[in-house]
Amino acid sequence: MQGDLEDALGRILRAPVETNVAGRTDAGVHALGQVVGCPDAPDGTDPARVREALNGLCGPAIAAASCSTAPEDWHARFSARSRLYVYAVLESEIPDPFLASTTYRRPYRLDVDAMNEAAGHLAGEQDFSSFGRVEPDGSPVRTLLELRAVRSGSIVRIRARATSFIQQMVRSLAGTLIDVGEGKRSPQEMTSVLKARDRSAAGPVAPPHGLCLVSVEYDEGWSHPIDVSGAPN
Amino acid sequence: MQGDLEDALGRILRAPVETNVAGRTDAGVHALGQVVGCPDAPDGTDPARVREALNGLCGPAIAAASCSTAPEDWHARFSARSRLYVYAVLESEIPDPFLASTTYRRPYRLDVDAMNEAAGHLAGEQDFSSFGRVEPDGSPVRTLLELRAVRSGSIVRIRARATSFIQQMVRSLAGTLIDVGEGKRSPQEMTSVLKARDRSAAGPVAPPHGLCLVSVEYDEGWSHPIDVSGAPN
Repeated sequence: MQGDLEDALGRILRAPVETNVAGRTDAGVHALGQVVGCPDAPDGTDPARVREALNGLCGPAIAAASCSTAPEDWHARFSARSRLYVYAVLESEIPDPFLASTTYRRPYRLDVDAMNEAAGHLAGEQDFSSFGRVEPDGSPVRTLLELRAVRSGSIVRIRARATSFIQQMVRSLAGTLIDVGEGKRSPQEMTSVLKARDRSAAGPVAPPHGLCLVSVEYDEGWSHPIDVSGAPN
Repeated sequence: MQGDLEDALGRILRAPVETNVAGRTDAGVHALGQVVGCPDAPDGTDPARVREALNGLCGPAIAAASCSTAPEDWHARFSARSRLYVYAVLESEIPDPFLASTTYRRPYRLDVDAMNEAAGHLAGEQDFSSFGRVEPDGSPVRTLLELRAVRSGSIVRIRARATSFIQQMVRSLAGTLIDVGEGKRSPQEMTSVLKARDRSAAGPVAPPHGLCLVSVEYDEGWSHPIDVSGAPN
């Protein structure tokens, strides 16, 4: 996807370009509010024209919701203050063709209260070694600014917000909270799962297609609010 | 799709089967509440087992919401009392990757009041020669039990219900109502469009991917109510 976008930008700006993205997304993960920086764009580039041209060249898998000029020292990834990911679970005994690519289907009703009790133990500043891959020389400590489950009809959305995440962290948190919602683990267990600092202590990594990078927040109004009518479930 | 379903049913019932479907759907058209009859199923077939096996074999493009035993003289197509189709228009200047396959995007805001005024002229028993293909020896007269546009955020849904439709009728009605919503035609024109009995008098046939067969109604409780949480837009 990033390659397709760079190819399109290269054609529009008539020069090879490299981009930087706010939130890494594994294969199969969706992004509703991804933010992409293009430092190679020449001075004086008209952002409105770039947006229109991108939407003409890309798609239907990629769409440019808005384009704007950024300050010199701005960077899509390093300037981001926080990212919000949403993991969507569809409670249904029956597969749903329309939601198959954007939700993870589970046949049982989830206990959202238990999931939120478990989430309370996981939120805040913690060593998340049990919930993801730590890069060599990297720190396993992250601060979960928000972690909660919200029911809307037969869809349960797990919202996870942090300045940054370690690899597979959101999907690992989602898989563990789904275990709690299905009664396979107790909310109280979360404390010992964190303490174990061992990935086998946590639940399974939930499949990528239920996950979506919903938004990225920046300082100074760089928040790119977008219409969420098209939010995947 | 019907072929895939028949293959799966044949494997489950261990015999070649033919099916009949309640509502014809052109290539690219979705179906949320399609009803399929399988008169070849042997007596004593357990419907719950068939549903479970179908959902194991088919998908993710096909799902069986429910299976039940029908009276001897029941036929998915001929016993149907009415069909409800919904045509979904997404009003957005920007493409939406998540809704691209289930909505028809238009960049302008639609005048839903004008669309409903036009729909008022089209509803009821009419000669719909201007709005679709009539089979040789077939009648162009149909009764539109419901035709209206309903806004929900940036999505406008055109609901069309009738006992039956002539070919391409719903997409032709949708294309014409979209023309009205965009100010290209007046609601009053609909009377002369009907009178013309000529397809060039109506608006364009709207593309198939915005259309969905939502439900089929039968007498005597044969209405197959299904959870619409997964309704495509």
